[in-house]
Amino acid sequence: MIPQLPQPPQLPHPDPGTGAAVKAADRAHVFHSWSAQELIDPLAVAGAEGSYFWDYDGRRYLDFTSGLVFTNIGYQHPKVVAAIQEQAGRMTTFAPAFAIEARSEAARLIAERTPGDLDKIFFTNAGADAVEHAVRMARLHTGRPKILSAYRSYHGGTQQAVNITGDPRRWASDSGSAGVVRFWAPFLYRSRFYAETEEQECARALEHLETTIAFEGPDTIAAIILETIPGTAGIMVPPPGYLAGVREICDRHGIVFVLDEVMAGFGRTGTWFAADLFGVVPDLMTFAKGVNSGYVPLGGVAISERIAATFARRPYPGGLTYSGHPLACAAAVATINVMAEEGVVENAAGLGARVIGPGLRDLAARHPSVGEVRGVGMFWALDLVRNRETREPLVPYNASGEATAPMAAFAAAAKENGLWPFVNMNRTHVVPPCTLTEEEAKEGLAALDAALTVADGYTE
Amino acid sequence: MIPQLPQPPQLPHPDPGTGAAVKAADRAHVFHSWSAQELIDPLAVAGAEGSYFWDYDGRRYLDFTSGLVFTNIGYQHPKVVAAIQEQAGRMTTFAPAFAIEARSEAARLIAERTPGDLDKIFFTNAGADAVEHAVRMARLHTGRPKILSAYRSYHGGTQQAVNITGDPRRWASDSGSAGVVRFWAPFLYRSRFYAETEEQECARALEHLETTIAFEGPDTIAAIILETIPGTAGIMVPPPGYLAGVREICDRHGIVFVLDEVMAGFGRTGTWFAADLFGVVPDLMTFAKGVNSGYVPLGGVAISERIAATFARRPYPGGLTYSGHPLACAAAVATINVMAEEGVVENAAGLGARVIGPGLRDLAARHPSVGEVRGVGMFWALDLVRNRETREPLVPYNASGEATAPMAAFAAAAKENGLWPFVNMNRTHVVPPCTLTEEEAKEGLAALDAALTVADGYTE
Ligand SMILES: Cc1ncc(COP(=O)(O)O)c(C=O)c1O
Ligand SMILES: Cc1ncc(COP(=O)(O)O)c(C=O)c1O
Repeated sequence: MIPQLPQPPQLPHPDPGTGAAVKAADRAHVFHSWSAQELIDPLAVAGAEGSYFWDYDGRRYLDFTSGLVFTNIGYQHPKVVAAIQEQAGRMTTFAPAFAIEARSEAARLIAERTPGDLDKIFFTNAGADAVEHAVRMARLHTGRPKILSAYRSYHGGTQQAVNITGDPRRWASDSGSAGVVRFWAPFLYRSRFYAETEEQECARALEHLETTIAFEGPDTIAAIILETIPGTAGIMVPPPGYLAGVREICDRHGIVFVLDEVMAGFGRTGTWFAADLFGVVPDLMTFAKGVNSGYVPLGGVAISERIAATFARRPYPGGLTYSGHPLACAAAVATINVMAEEGVVENAAGLGARVIGPGLRDLAARHPSVGEVRGVGMFWALDLVRNRETREPLVPYNASGEATAPMAAFAAAAKENGLWPFVNMNRTHVVPPCTLTEEEAKEGLAALDAALTVADGYTE
Repeated sequence: MIPQLPQPPQLPHPDPGTGAAVKAADRAHVFHSWSAQELIDPLAVAGAEGSYFWDYDGRRYLDFTSGLVFTNIGYQHPKVVAAIQEQAGRMTTFAPAFAIEARSEAARLIAERTPGDLDKIFFTNAGADAVEHAVRMARLHTGRPKILSAYRSYHGGTQQAVNITGDPRRWASDSGSAGVVRFWAPFLYRSRFYAETEEQECARALEHLETTIAFEGPDTIAAIILETIPGTAGIMVPPPGYLAGVREICDRHGIVFVLDEVMAGFGRTGTWFAADLFGVVPDLMTFAKGVNSGYVPLGGVAISERIAATFARRPYPGGLTYSGHPLACAAAVATINVMAEEGVVENAAGLGARVIGPGLRDLAARHPSVGEVRGVGMFWALDLVRNRETREPLVPYNASGEATAPMAAFAAAAKENGLWPFVNMNRTHVVPPCTLTEEEAKEGLAALDAALTVADGYTE
């Protein structure tokens, strides 16, 4: 069943002819991320509102991806749209070396919410450059060269950020990753530590990190960077005590602790920041996406007093043309205010605990293709498997082409049922807007139910 | 004389109280680019329009910086503001893996203007990430590791981009720059080749490049990257034949030729791209800034057919969340259309040739502190010196603190005369919006005249 969109009056160009022209110009001139350009067939999208988007044929989808996990307040929130329009009419752009109202206010609102003393905000355009600058700050603050990062992580597409990344998107750009050392973070379902309980996984992961540091040389390590809850790599909520343990290790060795909250931050986990779930305060925290729901490109680094002090009288040697872009900052101000006023963070927490979590666990009970359900708030993953005993993934790690057929069939079935799913390797992530309603949650769970039946066909 | 602004009705918060609050929140929470945080004193800016901006005390400045050389159509162009507002109301954001009208149209309009067969557009958020991706494309296309870049260049603030950079902003992040080889590009006024004529400088610079390649090993070199006209480093227009010579060298050795037009592109030089001045077609061309006058963060790489073909059936291993951001692309569409309809590129060419160029040469004739006038279109530099004979710079290379007093005095005098100048080391750049009027040009030249009298006081 494909839900038919009651065409809203403001829908621009609802006609298939325009869709074809948009698609043709795309194919002629747009070079797409992470793709073989002739093997992709991008859907032409005509409009989006709230939790839905629609194409030029009037086919509507419930978006369980939030774009790339960034539209935490959904599409076209009227207050944030109005704030962007107002700022555009007032001062759409200005250079970074000035004090600008929207910039000051965005920094203040973010600093008010970041944990601990992370009260200075360095604005960037997105996630990757936030990570690039966090790494630079850590190296200059410590005078040490190495960065420790986790396998099963994603930190961005620029050279430094992708080399810190622990997933295969790094490989093509990794010629030895000077200065980067990778380690394993805890993940019980696919444990690298032969652990059988969360306690064991946590203790062994910390011991593994300690040993790695001891053998690398503590005085050579500038920073440990972790996604608070790794996102793209599988939404693996760390066991209780792990992040506190990393914090303690960093303190003991004078290592800067960087938490990457580009995906996990700003409400996604049912708290303002994922770090709040664990009561941990890093030295640097990167953000982007949810800070303004991606309405205008924006990212940044929240900086502790101690690290800011390093650059109090010595210049910070880094920068960018659009640092603290007024239009992007105005969108952040409006987004944060909307989230506070409308209880968006609370909605993510409540709906996650009451509807999404139980709903996904119910699906797992009925579908043999579901190996594990993991997550919190509006941040969930289903780990799909051929076989629940062996936990063999439904498609192999980093597979392409024919080998991905089971996941492609799953995704196609979801779309036929009006749901746009997030698919990565053998997983589907359930990452809808944090403004999702209970009704929409149930609609999405029903579509997932149907799609998982297709996935079940590939189990043995 | 400080020109007093006739307060426009839409001026938000013209009161000094608001300015103080904006400044206080900035000082408490905003971490600024390239700065020692406690040694800066950012001006709080209340508004901007056309070629001017003003502070909260009603003091107005003619902006000869175009921000950081990006507001090529001036501030708050009503048509581009309206297009942003319209797109915000329609579809402010969407993920990159779809065909979106504003994205398709921006790519088409850019491809229509880029030289040669640079017809595929990979969108990024700004200049640095455009350079990062261009470098990655070149390495993967050739399978070779090294990038040749010029001293006296700036390519961005992320780790790879800053390591390609030839100016001192690189130093703090440069621990040996794996894979980057730097060479000298032509610059007769401060020749590294003991040349006395442009022809000699050109021939020797090409010979230097050839020899560098021969000794590095041609088969190890993926790309040569050059700013078509180096911007931040001093607006050094290359001599006739140089870029064609580099093109020929690249062809002979199978090296990818990258032109960085982040600053020089989109009308700045009185042509759509600086490459048009020289009739040269690179393999990859980076852009940002002028593409939408920085109204919304946007950058990108224009890709030749040959390099696009490399990624036709093999995935391009790079990407970013906001690639082809709809709001940024809508601003680009409107900006390009405005530039075409209103003859903005022609204005830059004409006013540069008729008023700015002759006006600056007249100043040089009367002020002993002016060592050289260089430039084209709306892209000019005055090289300030202590002594015209020795060409000793008015402040030393990469000086800080007390040693920069002469340039600080020059800048203060310009501001007192209502002009906001661009200052870098011993240079002032004259880089106003390309929409500047003749009257504004003359107003700015008069202010420069007064400020250069102050600089003259430091000559010997
Ligand atoms: C944790 C994390 N860090 C960094 C990034 C990179 O952000 P961007 O794509 O905006 O550069 C992402 C993007 O998904 C992310 O999830
Ligand atoms: C030639 C050139 N390339 C790259 C950049 C970096 O651009 P961004 O600051 O937008 O990252 C600049 C910025 O001034 C530039 O002038």
